Amino acid sequence: MKTGNEYRESLRKLNPVIYFMGRKIEDVVEDPATKPHVNAVAQVYDLAFDPAHEDLFITTSHLTNRKIHRFTHIHQSQDDLVNKVRCLRAAGQKTGTCFQRCAGWDALHSMYLMTYEIDKHYQTDYHKRFRKYLEYVQDEDLTVAAGVTDPKGDRSLAASKQADPDLYMRVIKRQDDGIVVRGAKAHQTGAVNAHEILVMPTAALKSGEEDYAVAFAIPIDSKGITQIFGRQTNDMRKEENSFDAGNTKFGVVGGESLIIFDDVFVPWERVFMLGECDMTGYGIEIFACTHRQNYGGCKTGVMDVLIGATSLLTTYQGTKKASHIREKIIEMVLLNETLYGSSLAGGLTSSPTESGAYVVNRLLANITKQNVTRNLYEICRLAHDIAGGILATLPSEKDLNDPRYGHLIEKYMKSVDHYPANDRMKILRLIEAMTGGTALVEAMHGAGSPQAQRVIMQRYAELDAKENLAKKILDIE
Amino acid sequence: MKTGNEYRESLRKLNPVIYFMGRKIEDVVEDPATKPHVNAVAQVYDLAFDPAHEDLFITTSHLTNRKIHRFTHIHQSQDDLVNKVRCLRAAGQKTGTCFQRCAGWDALHSMYLMTYEIDKHYQTDYHKRFRKYLEYVQDEDLTVAAGVTDPKGDRSLAASKQADPDLYMRVIKRQDDGIVVRGAKAHQTGAVNAHEILVMPTAALKSGEEDYAVAFAIPIDSKGITQIFGRQTNDMRKEENSFDAGNTKFGVVGGESLIIFDDVFVPWERVFMLGECDMTGYGIEIFACTHRQNYGGCKTGVMDVLIGATSLLTTYQGTKKASHIREKIIEMVLLNETLYGSSLAGGLTSSPTESGAYVVNRLLANITKQNVTRNLYEICRLAHDIAGGILATLPSEKDLNDPRYGHLIEKYMKSVDHYPANDRMKILRLIEAMTGGTALVEAMHGAGSPQAQRVIMQRYAELDAKENLAKKILDIE
Amino acid sequence: MKTGNEYRESLRKLNPVIYFMGRKIEDVVEDPATKPHVNAVAQVYDLAFDPAHEDLFITTSHLTNRKIHRFTHIHQSQDDLVNKVRCLRAAGQKTGTCFQRCAGWDALHSMYLMTYEIDKHYQTDYHKRFRKYLEYVQDEDLTVAAGVTDPKGDRSLAASKQADPDLYMRVIKRQDDGIVVRGAKAHQTGAVNAHEILVMPTAALKSGEEDYAVAFAIPIDSKGITQIFGRQTNDMRKEENSFDAGNTKFGVVGGESLIIFDDVFVPWERVFMLGECDMTGYGIEIFACTHRQNYGGCKTGVMDVLIGATSLLTTYQGTKKASHIREKIIEMVLLNETLYGSSLAGGLTSSPTESGAYVVNRLLANITKQNVTRNLYEICRLAHDIAGGILATLPSEKDLNDPRYGHLIEKYMKSVDHYPANDRMKILRLIEAMTGGTALVEAMHGAGSPQAQRVIMQRYAELDAKENLAKKILDIE
Amino acid sequence: MKTGNEYRESLRKLNPVIYFMGRKIEDVVEDPATKPHVNAVAQVYDLAFDPAHEDLFITTSHLTNRKIHRFTHIHQSQDDLVNKVRCLRAAGQKTGTCFQRCAGWDALHSMYLMTYEIDKHYQTDYHKRFRKYLEYVQDEDLTVAAGVTDPKGDRSLAASKQADPDLYMRVIKRQDDGIVVRGAKAHQTGAVNAHEILVMPTAALKSGEEDYAVAFAIPIDSKGITQIFGRQTNDMRKEENSFDAGNTKFGVVGGESLIIFDDVFVPWERVFMLGECDMTGYGIEIFACTHRQNYGGCKTGVMDVLIGATSLLTTYQGTKKASHIREKIIEMVLLNETLYGSSLAGGLTSSPTESGAYVVNRLLANITKQNVTRNLYEICRLAHDIAGGILATLPSEKDLNDPRYGHLIEKYMKSVDHYPANDRMKILRLIEAMTGGTALVEAMHGAGSPQAQRVIMQRYAELDAKENLAKKILDIE
Repeated sequence: MKTGNEYRESLRKLNPVIYFMGRKIEDVVEDPATKPHVNAVAQVYDLAFDPAHEDLFITTSHLTNRKIHRFTHIHQSQDDLVNKVRCLRAAGQKTGTCFQRCAGWDALHSMYLMTYEIDKHYQTDYHKRFRKYLEYVQDEDLTVAAGVTDPKGDRSLAASKQADPDLYMRVIKRQDDGIVVRGAKAHQTGAVNAHEILVMPTAALKSGEEDYAVAFAIPIDSKGITQIFGRQTNDMRKEENSFDAGNTKFGVVGGESLIIFDDVFVPWERVFMLGECDMTGYGIEIFACTHRQNYGGCKTGVMDVLIGATSLLTTYQGTKKASHIREKIIEMVLLNETLYGSSLAGGLTSSPTESGAYVVNRLLANITKQNVTRNLYEICRLAHDIAGGILATLPSEKDLNDPRYGHLIEKYMKSVDHYPANDRMKILRLIEAMTGGTALVEAMHGAGSPQAQRVIMQRYAELDAKENLAKKILDIE
Repeated sequence: MKTGNEYRESLRKLNPVIYFMGRKIEDVVEDPATKPHVNAVAQVYDLAFDPAHEDLFITTSHLTNRKIHRFTHIHQSQDDLVNKVRCLRAAGQKTGTCFQRCAGWDALHSMYLMTYEIDKHYQTDYHKRFRKYLEYVQDEDLTVAAGVTDPKGDRSLAASKQADPDLYMRVIKRQDDGIVVRGAKAHQTGAVNAHEILVMPTAALKSGEEDYAVAFAIPIDSKGITQIFGRQTNDMRKEENSFDAGNTKFGVVGGESLIIFDDVFVPWERVFMLGECDMTGYGIEIFACTHRQNYGGCKTGVMDVLIGATSLLTTYQGTKKASHIREKIIEMVLLNETLYGSSLAGGLTSSPTESGAYVVNRLLANITKQNVTRNLYEICRLAHDIAGGILATLPSEKDLNDPRYGHLIEKYMKSVDHYPANDRMKILRLIEAMTGGTALVEAMHGAGSPQAQRVIMQRYAELDAKENLAKKILDIE
Repeated sequence: MKTGNEYRESLRKLNPVIYFMGRKIEDVVEDPATKPHVNAVAQVYDLAFDPAHEDLFITTSHLTNRKIHRFTHIHQSQDDLVNKVRCLRAAGQKTGTCFQRCAGWDALHSMYLMTYEIDKHYQTDYHKRFRKYLEYVQDEDLTVAAGVTDPKGDRSLAASKQADPDLYMRVIKRQDDGIVVRGAKAHQTGAVNAHEILVMPTAALKSGEEDYAVAFAIPIDSKGITQIFGRQTNDMRKEENSFDAGNTKFGVVGGESLIIFDDVFVPWERVFMLGECDMTGYGIEIFACTHRQNYGGCKTGVMDVLIGATSLLTTYQGTKKASHIREKIIEMVLLNETLYGSSLAGGLTSSPTESGAYVVNRLLANITKQNVTRNLYEICRLAHDIAGGILATLPSEKDLNDPRYGHLIEKYMKSVDHYPANDRMKILRLIEAMTGGTALVEAMHGAGSPQAQRVIMQRYAELDAKENLAKKILDIE
Repeated sequence: MKTGNEYRESLRKLNPVIYFMGRKIEDVVEDPATKPHVNAVAQVYDLAFDPAHEDLFITTSHLTNRKIHRFTHIHQSQDDLVNKVRCLRAAGQKTGTCFQRCAGWDALHSMYLMTYEIDKHYQTDYHKRFRKYLEYVQDEDLTVAAGVTDPKGDRSLAASKQADPDLYMRVIKRQDDGIVVRGAKAHQTGAVNAHEILVMPTAALKSGEEDYAVAFAIPIDSKGITQIFGRQTNDMRKEENSFDAGNTKFGVVGGESLIIFDDVFVPWERVFMLGECDMTGYGIEIFACTHRQNYGGCKTGVMDVLIGATSLLTTYQGTKKASHIREKIIEMVLLNETLYGSSLAGGLTSSPTESGAYVVNRLLANITKQNVTRNLYEICRLAHDIAGGILATLPSEKDLNDPRYGHLIEKYMKSVDHYPANDRMKILRLIEAMTGGTALVEAMHGAGSPQAQRVIMQRYAELDAKENLAKKILDIE
């Protein structure tokens, strides 16, 4: 297993092509745009060396029986899917932001299940290939980015009906030694600082769309891959090197990028699906459900930081004991723990599959996600309510330090006397960063999708059965 | 273990004094006012003989190693507190209403813990007495009513400051052979059809209020006990013997009564606390938290029936496929499963005590209860929205059967052609009964109490720690 | 104009056929089932003689220039549509329940507009006929029931496609002297105690459904009309003659009935539409919007009583000064006034039609209704939360008065010392009655209908225009 | 009256001292940090010359009978307070952001009322002075910034108990020709681009705090005034000169600043209160209520732009016809119009004062504000839900225009074929800007304050009266 610093070292050996704001990012470890996101992943690596967390973050590979970082493990029990949530909360508490490594974890899990199922139906050998790949990832302790969401173009049209055929990832050539793919994956978390990318289809495909039914894994710096790093709320503040950035260490979001595959070669041993359209629906549902459970872990950890920050601010401002403040803090806690509850329960009620791996309770995973998208806004609203207008109008750190008038800001930004204005301003910046636009949107992605609703409908163990409960009570035939 | 019918038989041997509407209820098993509530408890007994549920409802006594009904078991593990929730949901699904036996179960659990703690502090022998009593309850498979809530008079005054000293239960005499108590317990569920009542203090008491710090158990037909059976929404319909009562088999609420103790004698071996004021806070918190977890089980089961009934109604009315109906049903499911999630999680994260028994995660138990009080109203609102105005204006079954004009009601109350008007009317009556005033109120009791809020505040594993998370990220000392 | 007592007298002269619970109601003024609803309408009559309200309740007929009761007036200005809301709130405050007379008022208003429009398109003379009828209603100060909602059978089928052709009201014969109609109107408010019924189509009809496009007015006791009075929550308590009924004077709902037209003759001068299918959509939208505005008036008045009752209860129980109680009362007020605001604004922004009559702002009318269906549940939830479990388990008045044990109830139901248990129990019964099933459902009817949503969509003054606002700011063509 | 350009010219003649990010802003009209806010105010000036809006924006001074811009008018009728809301909505629709000029308007209104009341109690002549000042403001068509919110230091301490006596604005010297003041006003909207600032106390003061009871008006570039312009979400994007700033023309917030008064001289004719502590409560309540009504106007206009932008995005993305999208748009409309309704109703039910000026219905004004703080978050949440993850991860305009790889972004950011990626990206940036952190917080300021709650409690026309309604129905004495 790698330490955070070994992870940083390993990144330095890669040469991904990444652009941002019209410039090329040469060193993801040190570039101010990407550094916080590298730090957040490094923190996840380091948690496996932290005596207080190692029990949770280190586990045993079912492939090799060797000790591995849990974030490369395939869930083998209900306990595993409960411990996943605990890990995510712990990492959220430590970083106060998205630590990025979970999407790839979920992709590994989904491909493990999907390759097993494809082989069963088609007598292919994807699963064997995939296990070999997984063993490599586990042994090298690699961070794998998930490549799932295609740009999708016109949402009212299927993959194969788009004006531009590349708006969904597709195979454009089949060769003796492998395949060539073209397309893009949009807003992928933690790819600029990953070692590998694991690509899978984003939607259920129909017969006739075989070229789009492709899954594979390759190094993130493979020839033909170009990443455009996305903008974030207040991204320019990262370059100011000031506390105005809010969470200067770990950033405020996951560091997403648009990943373009401009005719990229993939060798056969890294191809895990090719043309099995009827299995894509299963795969994307497994991935989506596995991932949706996570939000009740990571976001509750992150919200712990926000609740703590807000409570600290009331100490600084002298409002801590007011009953209306106390009730709002309680409400924030209630909204947060509700998410944690259904996420844990999703693990507790997970089920085994034929492959040996466990699948989260899909109903509860989707419930969790739906509630996250509601509760987070309400928590942020309450944080704003408690913080007050100053949150939106605070002077910059540069102004605070200006020799001409900085003392005036110091004077008037002081609140309860023995706390320095500097600390109050820092905590306000953190709250601002954690409750701003981008951070919120991130949690929302895909929440209200008809797919999520369909899963809820299907997984609610048959409405008919529930109807029968009523009939039985009433003696209706 | 008893079957439902054996339970009925055992009730017939008791002679409790119960009044309702100015008359004495002579036979609780057959009286229309109480029969449905007896049926609901009988159903819980029968579930232990139901092959589909016996694994869940039968367990092993940690006292005797004998097979017992789970509803008399003291939780010995996280699994026990998870299985409790599963049992409650199953029973809720079978009865579609409050099945009453859980409050006494929770009281047994709380007294088990409390007697252990009191003995530890005071070198008393309550715990030994209590274990003996528990063994009796388990072996006889008795239904024990909880006697917890005092009338409380003026809520702004403590127990000992009330104008009438009896507004909280108290000891009025200490004798060689036992004690004499006076007072009342208000709105106690399932007492008219219980075998025993287990009384404990309702609030944290202060030094000087020793007479009020009393816990004990006695047969429900002990001399001096008078019960006044409470009114329920549409209670008179039970006497009509028509489907207008909604859930004619099991009733729509728990069948609560006001239980008056007019100088009742309790022998020493049944006294489990006397004068230890400083332990009352602990006891009531354990009881409240244990009980609050339940709502995510029983109510979700009951709501399964309601969701099923509502869905069935859309079949009858021809609206099942409308997208706005489907979205409302999904929302009902989402609100319901959210409750189940945190209730299960409360069991999963429960902790052992020195006595060996486990205590539910108190934070999650209270989160569950708070959410129940919100979500149930929203679920009912959606049921009303889907059912439409007919729910509030439906003619009676008597009218439907009237030889003069019943055919006109039949004609105009028909909806989708091949479903009889009779069935549609029955399902409407069930929905009406399940969403009406009394049923709603029942779930609300104690929800917004400062005590519940205090527990949330205390159990949220220290705000300070959360504040430190924020400080750490910011390098604030 | 009539006084309340003159209204009662006039009802006694009619002979409507009404059944309830298998018996015929011979005297609607005195029968316990209908008396409270008669009282509520009588109260509306009396408000025109109340010096504090006469300015609001008396206005001048635009037809005759004579003084008339506002509830028969056709709105001629924005002020009229604002004053309507004020009247409704005042009547709601006085009765604490549905006072029934507004649905007929809205039907008069809608038919006034609709007949004008039909004449314009078809050169018919319905409007002239209708003005003559209106003059009669105004001069005699009659209560007119609206007959709008057909049973509708299978909701997925149109009027003419039902298995039974009578599930929507239709003309079955056209004669020299008039027409003969068959069908029913379901859950119509205040028809058992009305003088007349004004019938109009319930839905937009298509070409080929001419027989269903019929509107007319006739006396409520016309030959062939049979009413089945609907059940209400706790309806049997009205016959007990006890305060357990909650609002014993005015009832807790509107007193709805199923009105069956078994081949009823209507003379030509009372026919206001016949066969103009393409106008039915306009008519029902006008009626629905006019009626939906009302809820921000009547329900806010009724909720004033509930908020008052709940606040009074906290006085009796000694919780009035607790900060969490105060916050809940504030929230109830906030939810209630929000409804009033949009209802008033709907009048303020109403528009004139060619007929001279004004039409409410349809967007705001629908917003009001949607919010009513949400806010009322929340208000009731808060009332339940404040009242506590006693609301669902209170002994009966009969028990309180029982010579054997009534003193025990008196003793234990007392709260703050100087308020009698009797008053506390009465106020609890009122809250129970006002927040129970039926009362809630009543407000919900039709709320989430696609029709209501369509109106919102259409009336939101063109999304395109809003899109252009955004384009303009961005200089997008 | 001034045009927008004349307003810009007039600003150029002033010399306010403004710092931002460690540099001095020399030209507020052109500096990228402040230019959008100048533009927004200029737009309000121009609306008086826009034929479609002049009727609303031009009115007649009650002082001089001359035509004036409505934003300097003192409300003389219910119509005025209704038209205020209409003006605010129109300006919000035109600018899509805070147009800043209303806070000063409200301050003028409040001081008009407050000076009248002070004179009545103290026989002072503030009102005469103030009318002279108002006439000047009206004739010159000046933009007046409100100076209301003091830094307040430790919120648990009164003005005079702070460790630093300057944390509330105070008089430090009384001279023959005027007074000298010291202190600061925090997060004041639209002060950097105002002509004048009108200062009033922020809180109800007690006897002994006379030095803090001071109100006055002076030019914004008076000697001793230093402004620190506050940071905004994504403020650095304004300097990039790209569409990434979202609303590049008018900005996304109001342009707030911290205004420091470092011993500033005020001549007597501009002093409008000095030492009358007992009147400060009245003044701040009038200001707060007047201002809170506004949010139902300005924010609904701004949200019209957001709803339009979101709807436009669904056109670009091909999701417009999906039923779940349509329901979300309807919900956004519903939430928005609810605010407008209570704001209009607040004007409709406003009342005259002895001074002739009208005061908004304080209950409805506070209801409006409370609802704004809730509904806006929900509207933003829905906008995020509809927009999807791309909102949080969009590449920059600079990247789009990069000659090396810009074509790839163009290719993959296209959605429905005939709309350019450029337009889709612009609309996404606008939505991002309008729903981000700072913009949200702005609306929240002061919402949950105990003061606002107190107003609701007091203005709910006496709970006692409501209690009596219940008593009357029940014949309770």
